[in-house]
Amino acid sequence: MPLNSFQTSGNSPGFRDDRCHVAILGLGTVGAAVAQRLMGPDLAPHLRLTHICDRRARDKRARQGEPLLSLTWTDRFDDLLASDADIIVETMTGSEPSVDYVRAALLGGKSVVTANTQVMARHGQALLTLAERQGRQLRYEAAVGGAIPLVGALGDGLSGDTVLRIDAVLNDTATTVLSQMEQHGSSMDEGIAEACARGIADVDPSVDLDGIDAAAKLAILCGLAFHVKISPDAIETRTSADIRLEDFKKAKLRGGTIRQVAHASFDRASGTLTAWVSPDFVPFTSALAQTSGPENAAIITSRSGGTLTLVGIGGGGEASAVAIVSDLRAIARDRAAIVPAPVLSEPASIVGLSAQTLAEA
Amino acid sequence: MPLNSFQTSGNSPGFRDDRCHVAILGLGTVGAAVAQRLMGPDLAPHLRLTHICDRRARDKRARQGEPLLSLTWTDRFDDLLASDADIIVETMTGSEPSVDYVRAALLGGKSVVTANTQVMARHGQALLTLAERQGRQLRYEAAVGGAIPLVGALGDGLSGDTVLRIDAVLNDTATTVLSQMEQHGSSMDEGIAEACARGIADVDPSVDLDGIDAAAKLAILCGLAFHVKISPDAIETRTSADIRLEDFKKAKLRGGTIRQVAHASFDRASGTLTAWVSPDFVPFTSALAQTSGPENAAIITSRSGGTLTLVGIGGGGEASAVAIVSDLRAIARDRAAIVPAPVLSEPASIVGLSAQTLAEA
Repeated sequence: MPLNSFQTSGNSPGFRDDRCHVAILGLGTVGAAVAQRLMGPDLAPHLRLTHICDRRARDKRARQGEPLLSLTWTDRFDDLLASDADIIVETMTGSEPSVDYVRAALLGGKSVVTANTQVMARHGQALLTLAERQGRQLRYEAAVGGAIPLVGALGDGLSGDTVLRIDAVLNDTATTVLSQMEQHGSSMDEGIAEACARGIADVDPSVDLDGIDAAAKLAILCGLAFHVKISPDAIETRTSADIRLEDFKKAKLRGGTIRQVAHASFDRASGTLTAWVSPDFVPFTSALAQTSGPENAAIITSRSGGTLTLVGIGGGGEASAVAIVSDLRAIARDRAAIVPAPVLSEPASIVGLSAQTLAEA
Repeated sequence: MPLNSFQTSGNSPGFRDDRCHVAILGLGTVGAAVAQRLMGPDLAPHLRLTHICDRRARDKRARQGEPLLSLTWTDRFDDLLASDADIIVETMTGSEPSVDYVRAALLGGKSVVTANTQVMARHGQALLTLAERQGRQLRYEAAVGGAIPLVGALGDGLSGDTVLRIDAVLNDTATTVLSQMEQHGSSMDEGIAEACARGIADVDPSVDLDGIDAAAKLAILCGLAFHVKISPDAIETRTSADIRLEDFKKAKLRGGTIRQVAHASFDRASGTLTAWVSPDFVPFTSALAQTSGPENAAIITSRSGGTLTLVGIGGGGEASAVAIVSDLRAIARDRAAIVPAPVLSEPASIVGLSAQTLAEA
C-alpha cells in the first residue's frame, strides 16, 4: 500500500509565506544534512523546507523527532510536483531514474538543485537547456568537489579566461584509501576498510577506485572549462585498486606519492580533448600530493590567470550540504535570474591514457 | 583646453546592437589589459567595448593602433554618463575621487565592475545598496585576490556555511619581496627592486609592505565572510618592511618562513572580530608559505565545509582582467539579475595584534 502525502500541523493550509519553499528528494546522508541545515537557525532566512520525498518515507519519518516531523512527508514524487515547493533538492545516486525526476521537476515549473554527478555528467546540457527554456534554475555545485566551489570557479570566476588544463583529485574514497596506504603503511584492503569505517567509502568502492566517479566529474568540468561535450564513458580510466605499498615506496624515492589523478586538457586549434583518470605519480610539492582523507584538489591552468589551486573537503553529507544550501540561497536571492545553458561542441578527437607515463607503468 | 568626446567611424550613429556596451574608466595597466581582452576574439561575444575614458585620453589614444583607435575616447567622465554604455569598468586607484564616479555611474543607470580595493573596502556596502535600489549590478571580483575567485567563493560558494576564520596572503608586492628574500637571500631593498623590475611593486611600496592594501582587502572579505562592517583603518597592521634575512633563518630552523599574513576570525556569540595584518611565521606545510612572486592564497575555515584553500595569481593587469571580464560576462548573461546588498552589522569589539605571538616579536 503506497504512502500518501500527509499534511501536518506545521503547514497551515491557505497560508503561503514569501520564502522559497524547498522539497528534498531522497533522504540519504546528503539529504539529511541539507534538512538539518535548513531547519537550523541563521543560514537560510529566505528558505523554508516544506517537503521530504523518499521511497522509505514512512520508516524514515518514524525515526525523526521535531522539527522534521512537522514537514510534509511522502513516498510519491507526484506529490512534490503537485506541491507548492519552488525548488526540489535532488540527492539520489545514479543517473536512472533520477534524470526523469529532474526533468519532470523542471517541466513542472520547479527549480532544481542536484548533487547527482551522473545525472549532470550524462544529461547536464539537455537539462540546463530545459531549465533555461522553462525560466527556472538548475544548479549543481555539489555534483563536483563537495564544498569546493569548483563549478562556480570554472563557470563564473574564470569565465573571462581561457582554461588550458585541469589536474585534479576528485574522488574522496580514492584519496582516503591512497593517503591511508601512504601515511600508515596500510594495505589496499585496510585502506578500504578505514574509508568504510569513516563513512566515506561504500561497501563496494569499485566505482570510486576504478575512476568511474572521477570520470563523470571530469566530464562536467570539461563542459565548464572547455565548453566541450563529452560522455563520461568516453574518458579512459585505469583502476587504482591494483596499487601496492611498493608503489608508494618507489614514488617516495622519486620525491612524491600516488593519487588518483583526473586530467583534462583541450587543444582548441585541433579540437583535441585529452582526458583520463588514473593512479599517477605526483610530486610532494604538488597540491594533489598533499590531499588526504576526504579532500579533493584541482589545479586549473589558464592562459591569462596562470594557475589557480583549490583544495577542500570533496564529499560527505556536510560538505555536500554546504554546496547545496549555497545553491539554494543563490536561487532564493534571485528567482528571476535565468542561467543560460552552455553551448557545448563535440571535441574533434579524444585522447586517453596511451601517450602518458604513469605511476604503475 | 579639455578634450571632448569624439566619435569615430567604429560606431555607426543610430545603430545599437544587442550586445552589452562597455566603457573603461582609467586606462592603466589593468584597464589596458581589459581593453585587449575585450577586443580579442572568443571571450566576450555578448560584450562590446565602446568607450575609453582617461584623463590623458589624447596622449594615450595617440599611442594606440587599431582596433582600440576606433573606439570613442574621452577625458570627461560626463561623456560616459551620457553615452549608451551599459557597464562602466572602473580601474582607477584610491577611494577618492573614484567613489564619486562609481556612485554617479550607478545613479546614471549603469552597472559597474570595479577593481578598486579602497572604494569597495570603504564604501562597498553603500554602493551595493545603491546598485540594488537602482536595479543595476556592482561587481568587484578583481578588488581582492586578482584571478582567484575569492569574492565568489565567499559570497556564493560558501554562503550556505558559517565561516569561522580566514588566514590569507593578499598583497602580491609583499609576497614577491618576502619570497625573493627567502629563496635568493636578497636584502629587503633588493627584493623591492626585483618587485619593481617585474612590474609588481610601485616605486613606493609602503602601502603594500605596511599592510594598508591587505587590510582593505581583509575588510572586504570580513563583510563577505562574517557579514560585519569594518573600516580598513580599524584593522591593526604591522609593517613587513623591517623583516631581515636573519628572520628567515630563524623561521627556517622552526620549519617555516615569513609572509605578510592577513587574519580574521569572528566570534558570533560575543560579536568580537579579530583582525590584523602582520608579517608572521608560517610553517612550510601551509599553503601560505608556498606562495611566491605575485601569488595570493587564502585558507578559509568553515563550520561544516572544513578548510578551503585557494591559491593563484593575486594581481597585475592580466590576472585582474580575468576577474573583470568574468564579472562583465556575468552581468551580460543576465542584466536583469539584481544582487541584493548584504546586511552588515558592526562587530561588538575588534581585536588586533595584541594577543598574538608573531614572527618578529
